[in-house]
Amino acid sequence: MKNEISIGLLGLGTVGNGVATILQQHQQDLTYKLGVQVSIKKVLIKDKNKARLSSLDPNVFTTDVWDILDDPSIDIIVEVMGGIEGAKHAIESALRSGKQVVTANKDVMAEHGHELLKLADLEKCDLFYEASVAGGIPIIRTLEDGLASDRISSLMGIVNGTTNYILTKMKQENMSYETALAEATLLGYAESDPSADVDGLDAARKMVILSSLAFSTEVHLDDVLVRGMKDIQAGDLELAEGFGYTIKMVGSSKKDEDGIEVTVEPVFLANSHLLASVNNEFNAVYIYGDAVGETMLYGPGAGSLPTATSVVSDIIAACRNLLLEVNGKRVHAAQHERVMKSDNRRYSKYFHRLLVKDEVGMLSKLTSIYSNHMASLQSVMQHPAKNDGMAEIILLTHKISRQQHLDIIENLEDTASVISHYRIEGEESV
Amino acid sequence: MKNEISIGLLGLGTVGNGVATILQQHQQDLTYKLGVQVSIKKVLIKDKNKARLSSLDPNVFTTDVWDILDDPSIDIIVEVMGGIEGAKHAIESALRSGKQVVTANKDVMAEHGHELLKLADLEKCDLFYEASVAGGIPIIRTLEDGLASDRISSLMGIVNGTTNYILTKMKQENMSYETALAEATLLGYAESDPSADVDGLDAARKMVILSSLAFSTEVHLDDVLVRGMKDIQAGDLELAEGFGYTIKMVGSSKKDEDGIEVTVEPVFLANSHLLASVNNEFNAVYIYGDAVGETMLYGPGAGSLPTATSVVSDIIAACRNLLLEVNGKRVHAAQHERVMKSDNRRYSKYFHRLLVKDEVGMLSKLTSIYSNHMASLQSVMQHPAKNDGMAEIILLTHKISRQQHLDIIENLEDTASVISHYRIEGEESV
Repeated sequence: MKNEISIGLLGLGTVGNGVATILQQHQQDLTYKLGVQVSIKKVLIKDKNKARLSSLDPNVFTTDVWDILDDPSIDIIVEVMGGIEGAKHAIESALRSGKQVVTANKDVMAEHGHELLKLADLEKCDLFYEASVAGGIPIIRTLEDGLASDRISSLMGIVNGTTNYILTKMKQENMSYETALAEATLLGYAESDPSADVDGLDAARKMVILSSLAFSTEVHLDDVLVRGMKDIQAGDLELAEGFGYTIKMVGSSKKDEDGIEVTVEPVFLANSHLLASVNNEFNAVYIYGDAVGETMLYGPGAGSLPTATSVVSDIIAACRNLLLEVNGKRVHAAQHERVMKSDNRRYSKYFHRLLVKDEVGMLSKLTSIYSNHMASLQSVMQHPAKNDGMAEIILLTHKISRQQHLDIIENLEDTASVISHYRIEGEESV
Repeated sequence: MKNEISIGLLGLGTVGNGVATILQQHQQDLTYKLGVQVSIKKVLIKDKNKARLSSLDPNVFTTDVWDILDDPSIDIIVEVMGGIEGAKHAIESALRSGKQVVTANKDVMAEHGHELLKLADLEKCDLFYEASVAGGIPIIRTLEDGLASDRISSLMGIVNGTTNYILTKMKQENMSYETALAEATLLGYAESDPSADVDGLDAARKMVILSSLAFSTEVHLDDVLVRGMKDIQAGDLELAEGFGYTIKMVGSSKKDEDGIEVTVEPVFLANSHLLASVNNEFNAVYIYGDAVGETMLYGPGAGSLPTATSVVSDIIAACRNLLLEVNGKRVHAAQHERVMKSDNRRYSKYFHRLLVKDEVGMLSKLTSIYSNHMASLQSVMQHPAKNDGMAEIILLTHKISRQQHLDIIENLEDTASVISHYRIEGEESV
């Protein structure tokens, strides 16, 4: 049996520093848990001259990734360098030389996860990626182990802290989008280029990872319908509130006999839904399982130490497997064929906010467009006319297909201009 | 390698039926996940003539526990029979004959968990007990694996569905305690004898299990300070609301350099705390880890299928270990000595509600009792005098020790009668 386990850390940014910190501070606990010493043997950095926060021995640093990947004494590669191609290549090389891999890289796992997991299976190595989704929340593990016995039919997540922070501030403090984004950047929640967050790409990647796991199917990034925050118009948040909803960027993944649908977009989320009270930078994942019913996991979605907690939990799992010589024994191959739903099969209620000329017969003209598309309406509300002879009309539909919704929006063109539209989410359950 | 795994099910009540149902309905998924067939070989029942809900082969039933425990072809014993001594004996025998054990029995695990886990270690067998706490919520797994890398300093739980249901109805629908309890019984949340729920014993047992795990210490049932719901007086819920609190039965477990404190009691929980919005029969466990910060797991705390989900997830884990021949490799021995805090070291804010004679100088008489005990007050409020010449006075203290609180309550005796008193909880964090 081994009496020491050596780690090669690729990257010493926010998460890498957190990993080094936890491994040092909790060393005694870890040694007790595992019965062996776990230590960082080498660390890949970009620039040897840069000042380091961590108290690591300066001899561990290298700027050459092969120094680490080719070192036969290193058991576990921890990839926290970010980026896609370089990280993918490093993970592949590590697996091919029989090393266990822990990664926090959602971009790589969303775009190349399926092939990397197959490679891990082939090479009989562990590839753990708990930290790639929802920072400190043990959601991957819960889907793989805790709910292993159940059949999941729906998974909804607030999995991007930046957009959730912005929406919380806009709602609770009447902040403008710009001010809230500036504050999020200042607090370190948002990247200097926040487009991946606000456009929904970051959340979409996480939903690819979660959906693939929850449904044991190879979901791809192209399968996710994505809308960003920019479609939210002034006044939408108040309107939502008036109808009992909160606007949240929600990743939603559902499966029934027609197939799978995955979306990331700002939705009108029923205030009674558990996710509606997840505020600020926090993340949460809501799961509906046939047997278990409703469950939710809540926690920090990012940050150095929370994310590092997940990385180190993965390291511990890899260590346990190493000591028992049972790495790479989980089969990752998808159980089910990938069947995505067509727009004709995605049903939801919708909220439409229109600007029309304030004239006699307008309402009947509008509602006839809906009835022509076989869409029944739950409510229609006309806002007081404005000075400019225009009026705002709000329509809430009963459940219609996404195709009906798109057709209606297109057909409204001659009659009204569509200020904004949202899918309504979270009404069926508590 | 085995090509079939056989289960002996001890008990076919609510949970046992759920386990049989899930194993049957999800058989295809399980076979895919594990690569082998898992089947129920024998089931212990009390009465062979009783009609069965499940579609199990009648030949599997037996009324003799030794029929199952002595059957060498049975790999995993699933103990869902309830009770303490019989269940303990069955678990011991199973472990001694080298079988893996899955139990949903919180009573056994709270009272004999430490010795049973030691026996499992000794016999190199698995003893899994996810379903013993908070039904469908994978909390044991999260503490053991997901947060394995962290150091937990506080764990708070709403871990009894019955009392949470009653308190929710009392608050939201102004129901009396009796009506709410009757409704909970009707809905099957409360037992015919609800005393273990309403007196806090059920929650205390769960907190013993969670605290032992979270702090890697042998916490005992005697260590838990327990107060039941009966101490809640008419008007307390409204008063709590007026001050921004919700009365919840909270299990609370904290650790710092002075030691561990574990309580189960109705507390004034800050409305801003995550647990304050956990309503009806739902359970939730809030964890504060040094690195991860705040996390919460939410879900159904009881019920046939939710609880069975946890049992079957444990069965899957035991099967995986069987197939890899690595059962019983987790060390359960406590890492830390058990140091419980004295009342002098348990600090909290308190709410005191007193009935006094409405006379000049009363307030100063009262407040001097507090200052004599070095307790500083956050606020003092006198309710309008009643016709009978009596007045109600509400006092909220700053942080004081439990000893100070007890001394003050005792010293108030000559001056006031204490209508009710509560610890204030959940103000420090979101």
